[in-house]
Amino acid sequence: MHTVKVNLGDRSYDIEIGTRLDNAGEQIKGLGLGQKIALVINPTVKELYGKRVLDTLKAQGFMVMSIVIPDGEQHKNLDWANAIYTALLTNAFDRKSALVAVGGGVIGDLTGFAAATFMRGVPFIQIPTTLLAMVDSSVGGKTGVNHPMGKNMIGAFYQPKKVLMDLSVLTTLPKEEFLSGMAEVIKYGVIWDGPFFEYLDANRDKILALDPDALSHIIRRSCEIKAEVVSRDEREGGLRAVLNFGHTVGHAIEKAEHYTMRHGYAVAIGMVYASRLAHRTGLCDASVPERVEALIRSYGLPVGLSALGRRPTVIELMDTMRIDKKAEGGKVKFVLPKKIGEVVITKDWDEGVLRSILET
Amino acid sequence: MHTVKVNLGDRSYDIEIGTRLDNAGEQIKGLGLGQKIALVINPTVKELYGKRVLDTLKAQGFMVMSIVIPDGEQHKNLDWANAIYTALLTNAFDRKSALVAVGGGVIGDLTGFAAATFMRGVPFIQIPTTLLAMVDSSVGGKTGVNHPMGKNMIGAFYQPKKVLMDLSVLTTLPKEEFLSGMAEVIKYGVIWDGPFFEYLDANRDKILALDPDALSHIIRRSCEIKAEVVSRDEREGGLRAVLNFGHTVGHAIEKAEHYTMRHGYAVAIGMVYASRLAHRTGLCDASVPERVEALIRSYGLPVGLSALGRRPTVIELMDTMRIDKKAEGGKVKFVLPKKIGEVVITKDWDEGVLRSILET
Repeated sequence: MHTVKVNLGDRSYDIEIGTRLDNAGEQIKGLGLGQKIALVINPTVKELYGKRVLDTLKAQGFMVMSIVIPDGEQHKNLDWANAIYTALLTNAFDRKSALVAVGGGVIGDLTGFAAATFMRGVPFIQIPTTLLAMVDSSVGGKTGVNHPMGKNMIGAFYQPKKVLMDLSVLTTLPKEEFLSGMAEVIKYGVIWDGPFFEYLDANRDKILALDPDALSHIIRRSCEIKAEVVSRDEREGGLRAVLNFGHTVGHAIEKAEHYTMRHGYAVAIGMVYASRLAHRTGLCDASVPERVEALIRSYGLPVGLSALGRRPTVIELMDTMRIDKKAEGGKVKFVLPKKIGEVVITKDWDEGVLRSILET
Repeated sequence: MHTVKVNLGDRSYDIEIGTRLDNAGEQIKGLGLGQKIALVINPTVKELYGKRVLDTLKAQGFMVMSIVIPDGEQHKNLDWANAIYTALLTNAFDRKSALVAVGGGVIGDLTGFAAATFMRGVPFIQIPTTLLAMVDSSVGGKTGVNHPMGKNMIGAFYQPKKVLMDLSVLTTLPKEEFLSGMAEVIKYGVIWDGPFFEYLDANRDKILALDPDALSHIIRRSCEIKAEVVSRDEREGGLRAVLNFGHTVGHAIEKAEHYTMRHGYAVAIGMVYASRLAHRTGLCDASVPERVEALIRSYGLPVGLSALGRRPTVIELMDTMRIDKKAEGGKVKFVLPKKIGEVVITKDWDEGVLRSILET
């Protein structure tokens, strides 16, 4: 087991990588919570792991209620957050009662938002069960729900008390879900760590075969990088925006696809376009977009808009970007690579150039 | 003009007491916001002061949109928060755009919650127009909306960038609204400042006649006390709970009356019962509940359940208290006076005693 510390003053917490689900109760017991726990979970994960998590919590004397949220991003909304509040109030939960999210990003983001806003904040524990949730959404305290007009438009910065990762759950994860997480792993290489990018290229077969050591390494390194960025800039005043590499175009694609495309797939395409924009803007040489595209493609991830069910118009994508949370005064800040392992955040890019990249 | 500083590290802010509405634009200009401002207001306040606030903001070059929320506590809910998000998204607001709440506690709490959760937090300025909002809800960062099962059950701690108070607006405030605020002013005397309690007794006529100096004094002292408490305990880990004096029974009364009774009226009754409970628990002598009741009565505020439209059953009140946010493990913590100017927070009180006090 390896612990990654997320240093945020009195909101610091530990990520335990390589723990076992069956030990979750013990680890949660040490956090000084009240007696009541609400397990927030979806039907698929409940079927696979619900009983194990329930048993380990009950063995520690917790009173546990399960709140089952239907599968799918379309349920990450204010109505389901309200359903959680109602369940908590009906069962007389108080400020020391905790919410435990077992699942992927949808469950984690929704549960985190409910925890942040129920009685102005109750304790929250994450047990991510997808690679994407392990390397991305469970680190850094971004919680939120979608609004019909945009993804994650309603939310809060709210840190969990602990994050527990049992890597064996990845064996039951659909291949496409695993690859979606790999897009974010690749992102960490591009934005922060050139040698890690090379490791991902050299160890592709091991990683895709879910070799435990390789998995442990990539998840640990991803969490370390994200934890470092977040510790320096919790509320996205500046540096933290580097984590949005690939996400500006990515979010616009997700919206165009009505959130039916996997997040990582959209980010993968976004990273390719952002790398090309960086090159066309004169920030990096041509090898950067080439290497980014090659690594993404080698993992079986999409690299262009042709992968979409319906090709959105460029105008549609540009319009969505303008109301993105990352926009300021109508101008989108792009995260663009200078080389593999280093990016800049900039408003200095040309709309015409981006348009021509998106059109080809 | 007098400035009360609320010291909360990088979330510190100033309360400007005695500013003029017409100078609000200038004072907001200095905060380094974006171009867009949403003015959140209700029809009554809009009619009285909307144009003045709009003009002062436009004079400073802001692009201002008004979001009008119908009058009344019943609109402080998730649906109206969502209406605010939709208005902001429709008008392409971004993370630097600000929300300005002009109104009483309902507008302030709702707007604060929307600001806390829109794009995970946008700047927020309060211009309270009721005495209650000036001395209570605009200080300390408690934002929130009601759930059908309880008041303020959904919310966040989120600090404004600035609070601006033009005391002349109190001249258009209905008498009952003013008195509702006076209940909270009296509360500060009981929990923190014996001489202030005596000032309120000695200067009743001036205060009720809205004498500017007397008003300025009581608002300033109330804000100072609340700011001091909140600076020491922002997230209600301990001390901050003293501010809930009168609120445990008060909230149960508000719920029994379906939130049609003014907050301060319910708190006034709650303070009388809590003072009696303190005496019966042996924490203070009989003069404390007598003096609290006498001062409250002298301001024309209610002192018992007989003031309610329908007298709730004691069982009903006790049940509501149990699911109060202030409950922990089913046991309510009461704030009880030891003397005028000092309270304790305690779980050591007897249900039977409280029941008998509520029954008489």
